[in-house]
Amino acid sequence: MFEFVTFIRVRYAETDRMGYVYYGNYATYFEVARVETIKALGFSYRLLEDDGIMLPVLEYHSKFFKPAYYDDLLTIKTRITGFSGARIFFDYTVRNEQGETICEASTTLVFISADTKKPTPAPEALRLKLKSLE
Amino acid sequence: MFEFVTFIRVRYAETDRMGYVYYGNYATYFEVARVETIKALGFSYRLLEDDGIMLPVLEYHSKFFKPAYYDDLLTIKTRITGFSGARIFFDYTVRNEQGETICEASTTLVFISADTKKPTPAPEALRLKLKSLE
Amino acid sequence: MFEFVTFIRVRYAETDRMGYVYYGNYATYFEVARVETIKALGFSYRLLEDDGIMLPVLEYHSKFFKPAYYDDLLTIKTRITGFSGARIFFDYTVRNEQGETICEASTTLVFISADTKKPTPAPEALRLKLKSLE
Amino acid sequence: MFEFVTFIRVRYAETDRMGYVYYGNYATYFEVARVETIKALGFSYRLLEDDGIMLPVLEYHSKFFKPAYYDDLLTIKTRITGFSGARIFFDYTVRNEQGETICEASTTLVFISADTKKPTPAPEALRLKLKSLE
Repeated sequence: MFEFVTFIRVRYAETDRMGYVYYGNYATYFEVARVETIKALGFSYRLLEDDGIMLPVLEYHSKFFKPAYYDDLLTIKTRITGFSGARIFFDYTVRNEQGETICEASTTLVFISADTKKPTPAPEALRLKLKSLE
Repeated sequence: MFEFVTFIRVRYAETDRMGYVYYGNYATYFEVARVETIKALGFSYRLLEDDGIMLPVLEYHSKFFKPAYYDDLLTIKTRITGFSGARIFFDYTVRNEQGETICEASTTLVFISADTKKPTPAPEALRLKLKSLE
Repeated sequence: MFEFVTFIRVRYAETDRMGYVYYGNYATYFEVARVETIKALGFSYRLLEDDGIMLPVLEYHSKFFKPAYYDDLLTIKTRITGFSGARIFFDYTVRNEQGETICEASTTLVFISADTKKPTPAPEALRLKLKSLE
Repeated sequence: MFEFVTFIRVRYAETDRMGYVYYGNYATYFEVARVETIKALGFSYRLLEDDGIMLPVLEYHSKFFKPAYYDDLLTIKTRITGFSGARIFFDYTVRNEQGETICEASTTLVFISADTKKPTPAPEALRLKLKSLE
């Protein structure tokens, strides 16, 4: 199970009139965390797409325990929790500067061929890389 | 169980470079659907906040079956599925113009006092209104 | 000069912690207003793209006189103010429910061939349609 | 004239179906750049708001020369170009990884008292700090 930590500074645009980070914006934080996690493994999501593989989100669950505020530096711990056929699973934990867990989330994504728009197995190199780290 | 239907036209800003609606933007669609559902019951989320009650999201689950595209007119069916103390539960089904279900989601929200930042019971009038419709 | 009016309800996601509509979100409102204006002329921006013509923004100016708030119903008056080669010019005026002008803006867009990525003349049919309305 | 450089990595959420960064998202980039510039001077926009001073945008102009793409690392050079009463002026230049200028922009913001909602002079300490750097 590969784990990687990403830091994200809350932008003003991401707050709402409660003064909280709008709940919809966490999805973007998780995208950034996911992409950096894949980069840390030596892969690039951008190159993946250039190679004709897309990786849309199939499922997204999130639980919010405390709000995040403007200018907070959030710590996102991302874990790749597994593969299943064309699917890849990620878990996320978000902590604020006080070390409190403010959000937990998970996503399921699916590798899709840009040509056929059908699921396609996760790239072999990525699977092997993750296996080598176990 | 109160049910209400909202129509949302996909904006260009909401698409991503796959040409799909970015998965994070559905949260905004559900907010719009939720607010219109509450309005349909004769209540206003804006007035609720002016009265010192906030309604942040505690939990958000979504499953994506098919992409939505630019300029699609989406149909969102929202159901208030229940109350539990200070919590209120919503379910959503999103259909595209071909009538295909493209996304299913649910949210749990909690009534919070803006003063104390503590959970507070759902407004009595809203509970009664929903009960009267059963 | 063709003029068209669009109504936009402010979403919670679009507010910031000042309680105002975040200044960056007006660009999306103008996109919606622009697209509806083109639709009112019998054209579709979506079909335009399907035909291999893109219409990115070259220039965007905006002045803010008063804030817009959550749940406000904004009235956007859009005017197509002219063409120049591959360029098309739009002006916008945003009014709140009290009829106050809260924002004025303008955009310059350019017709681009998706193939060559070079500027391409505005579609003849659109030019003729606008001319016929003068 | 104080100058500061900020780096921003383009997020997937910020692209649109042209594959470009959506023009509305640059406003958020300039907010991040502005806030970091003020931090570099030893001030905090967050603390400013906590002290009852808001800083909404009055005017925003932008010119786009080339698109930005997903995962690009953008370099934003921000300059504080002056003060006038309660107003503060910023200029921005955005470069891509090839060093090409892809966007130029400027914003006018106004210091507002959160209590009175009226313009209020720029904080003396900020003015003096900037003067000392001339």
